[in-house]
Amino acid sequence: MTKVNAGFLELQRNYLFVEIAHKVAAFKEANPGKKVISLGIGDVTRPLVPAVVSALHRAVDEMGEAAHFRGYGPEQGYEFLREAIAQHDYKARGVDLRTDEIFVSDGAKSDIGNFQELFAADSVVAVTNPVYPVYVDSNVMAGRAGGFAAGRWKRLVYLPCLKSNNFVPDLPKTRPDMIYLCYPNNPTGTVLSREALQGWVDYARREGCVLLYDSAYEAFIQEPDIPHSIYELNGAQEVAVEFRSFSKTAGFTSLRCAYVVVPHALQLSDGKGGKVALNSLWNRRQCTKYNGCAYIVQQAAAAVYSQEGRAQVEAVIRGYLQNAELLCTAVQDMNLEVFGGTNAPYIWAGVPKGMDSWGFFEHLLQSAALVCTPGAGFGASGEGYVRLTAFGTEEDTAEAIRRLRALR
Amino acid sequence: MTKVNAGFLELQRNYLFVEIAHKVAAFKEANPGKKVISLGIGDVTRPLVPAVVSALHRAVDEMGEAAHFRGYGPEQGYEFLREAIAQHDYKARGVDLRTDEIFVSDGAKSDIGNFQELFAADSVVAVTNPVYPVYVDSNVMAGRAGGFAAGRWKRLVYLPCLKSNNFVPDLPKTRPDMIYLCYPNNPTGTVLSREALQGWVDYARREGCVLLYDSAYEAFIQEPDIPHSIYELNGAQEVAVEFRSFSKTAGFTSLRCAYVVVPHALQLSDGKGGKVALNSLWNRRQCTKYNGCAYIVQQAAAAVYSQEGRAQVEAVIRGYLQNAELLCTAVQDMNLEVFGGTNAPYIWAGVPKGMDSWGFFEHLLQSAALVCTPGAGFGASGEGYVRLTAFGTEEDTAEAIRRLRALR
Repeated sequence: MTKVNAGFLELQRNYLFVEIAHKVAAFKEANPGKKVISLGIGDVTRPLVPAVVSALHRAVDEMGEAAHFRGYGPEQGYEFLREAIAQHDYKARGVDLRTDEIFVSDGAKSDIGNFQELFAADSVVAVTNPVYPVYVDSNVMAGRAGGFAAGRWKRLVYLPCLKSNNFVPDLPKTRPDMIYLCYPNNPTGTVLSREALQGWVDYARREGCVLLYDSAYEAFIQEPDIPHSIYELNGAQEVAVEFRSFSKTAGFTSLRCAYVVVPHALQLSDGKGGKVALNSLWNRRQCTKYNGCAYIVQQAAAAVYSQEGRAQVEAVIRGYLQNAELLCTAVQDMNLEVFGGTNAPYIWAGVPKGMDSWGFFEHLLQSAALVCTPGAGFGASGEGYVRLTAFGTEEDTAEAIRRLRALR
Repeated sequence: MTKVNAGFLELQRNYLFVEIAHKVAAFKEANPGKKVISLGIGDVTRPLVPAVVSALHRAVDEMGEAAHFRGYGPEQGYEFLREAIAQHDYKARGVDLRTDEIFVSDGAKSDIGNFQELFAADSVVAVTNPVYPVYVDSNVMAGRAGGFAAGRWKRLVYLPCLKSNNFVPDLPKTRPDMIYLCYPNNPTGTVLSREALQGWVDYARREGCVLLYDSAYEAFIQEPDIPHSIYELNGAQEVAVEFRSFSKTAGFTSLRCAYVVVPHALQLSDGKGGKVALNSLWNRRQCTKYNGCAYIVQQAAAAVYSQEGRAQVEAVIRGYLQNAELLCTAVQDMNLEVFGGTNAPYIWAGVPKGMDSWGFFEHLLQSAALVCTPGAGFGASGEGYVRLTAFGTEEDTAEAIRRLRALR
C-alpha cells in the first residue's frame, strides 16, 4: 500500500487557536449579553483603500472585454508590478535590484512555506523562540526537524528571544544552514537595529548560511534607524532571501499578494564542489508548481504604489499604530511590562506576577471579555507574555482600553 | 556552505516552449508582413463572461466597505463555493461528497505540483507518455524520479499512449504507488470510457495505489458515456484524488481558481502498520503553506454555477469546440490522422509521412505562418504527432483553416 510522507505524521497538533476558539465559545455561551473584543487575531479590519478598489474595478472591466482580456500571466509576476516594487520598496532606500530578482506570489505564507523545498533534506534549520509556526512546521513536513521530545524538535537550533537579550537573538552556538528571522517580529513586535541585523548578515557570510528574512510587517516601521530591507546591510544580497507581503501593508489578507526577493548573488553549494544560484532554482520551482498571481490582484498591488494609494495605505497604518500606542499605554498603566507596538502592529505584554500566559488569557476573558493570544503558544520562550494586536477597529480598541483600565 | 536540494539539479531543461518561441521569433523577423497564428498555446482567449464580471465588481465593492470587508478566509475555501461545487459538479452526477472533501485553491498547477508532498520520498510514480510535464518535474524535485538517461527517468513507470492502444494506457507491469492520469487528456485530447476508467480504479484498489486524476478539461466532455468525474466509478473514493479547475471551464487562467477533491475514504499506510487519511494531511498542508484563494475570485467562481453563469460559460465552450471541429475536418482533409478534439480543446494530429513532429512544426510555420506544438516535446511517445489547440478566436481559427486548406 502506498505510504505517506512520515514528516507529516511527526507534526504536533497546533492546539493554540483551536483552544482559544473553544474557550471563547464557552465564555460567549455563559455570557450571552457580553460583546467579546478580540485583540488576538493578526488580521486587518479596515477596508481596501479607494485607489485599490478603483484599480480592481478597472482590471475587472479589462478582463470582461475581448480586446483587453489576458490569459496566463508570467509565473514570476507582471513586469509593471515588479518594477514598482524595485523602484519604491528598494531603489528609494538605496537598494538596487533587478526585476528578475523579484517573484510575485499569492502570499508570504505560500512563499515561506514553499521556499524550504530548495534546500537539501539534511539542512539544519534555526528558528527564534517564540516563533511563527510556519517556519517550523514546513520543515517538519520536509523531515528536517528530527523527532519532537520534551517540547523541542531535536534537529532544530533554537534562538531564544527574551527580555534578557532585549528580544534580539544571540548568534547560534552551532552553525545552522538556514536561519529564519522575522522583523518587525511576530509575535513580540520588536525590531532589529541596523547593527544587530548587520551582525546576522556578517555571521551568515562567515559561516555560509542562508538568512530567510520575513519582513511582512515592514510598513509599520516608524523609527529612522531601523532597516526596512535586509539589503540595506552590507553583503546581504549574498546570503539573504527577503519575504514581503501586501497583506498588512495594504489590507490584502483576502486579496492575496506578496513577493519574495532572491538576489542573483545568492549562491549555494551543489554538493559536488560547485555553486548554484538560488534565483534559478526558485524560478524553476515557481514555473513548475505555480501559475502566477491573478492579474486583477497585481493591478491592485501596483495601485498601492501610486501617489494616491501610498497616502491612503499610510493613513490606514497610522490608524493601526495609534491603536497600538493606546494599547501600550493602557497595559503600562496596569503596571505590566510592554514590548513592541512602536514599529509593529503587535504588543508583547508581560503577564502579572503569579500568572502564566494562559492564566492571564483566562483573566482577560472572564473579567473583561477581551481575547489575547497566550505567548506560550508561540514557543516555550513565549511563556510569561501575551500578544495583543492593534488591527481592531478604532471603536473596538477604545472599548478594549476602557475595559483594561477598569481592571486596574 | 548550505547545500541545495539535489533533485532540482537533476531537472532537465524544458526546451520545448523556449525553442518554439525562438523559431517563431526568427520567422517573424524574416517575414515582417505575415500574421502568425498560434494553435500552440493551451490558453483561453475569450473574455470573462458577464455573470463573472458582475460578481467580481460586487465582491470588490464589498471589500471597499467597512461593513462588508473580509480578511483572511478559510484556507480550504469558502463554504458557499464548496457547496456550489458539491452540488453542481458532483451531486448532479450522482456523486455524494462532503464539502470538507473539497479544497479550493489558486490553480490546478499548484495543487498537482504540491500534492506529491504527501507521499513517502521513495514512492514509485507512474505517468503516461506523452505527459503534462508538471507530474514529472514535481517528482524529480522531490527525488522520486531517479537519474535521467537515454530519454527516461530511471524510477518512473511509463504508460505509453499510442494509436495501437487507442491512446488508452495499459495497466502497468510493475506496481507503482502513485499514478497520474489526465482525462480529457492533455496533449492528445482523448478520453477514457467508463469501462477503461473502472479498470484503473479496480487496479488501484487491488494493488493499493493512489490515482491522481487531473480533470482540468472536464467541461469539454460532450459524449454521453464518458465519465465527468472519477467518482462516478465504483470504489473510486477509496483510491482517487481529483483535480479540477475553472481555468478552461470559465476562462480563469488569469483569475486563478481550482479545487481538489480528497475523499475521507482515501487512506494510506503510515509505514507502521496503521492507516492515515490523506484528507487530513492535505488539510494540514494547506493550513500550513497556503492562505486561501482570494474572496473576490471565489465569488467569481461561484457565479459560474449560477443559471446565467452556466449558460454563458457553456456558450464559450461550445465556441471552442466548434473551432476544434473545424480544425479536425481541415486536418483530416489534409489526409492526416486526427485524434481528440471531440471532448477536449486539444487535437492530436499525425504528421505527414517522412516528417517528424519538429519537421511538421517547421513546415506549418514556414508555409502557413501557423504555430503548433511538436508532440515529441511531451515525451518520446508523442513523436509523429503535433498538438493543435482550439482556444483561438473564431476569426483566427477560420484564417488558420484557410491556410491549412491552401497547403493541401
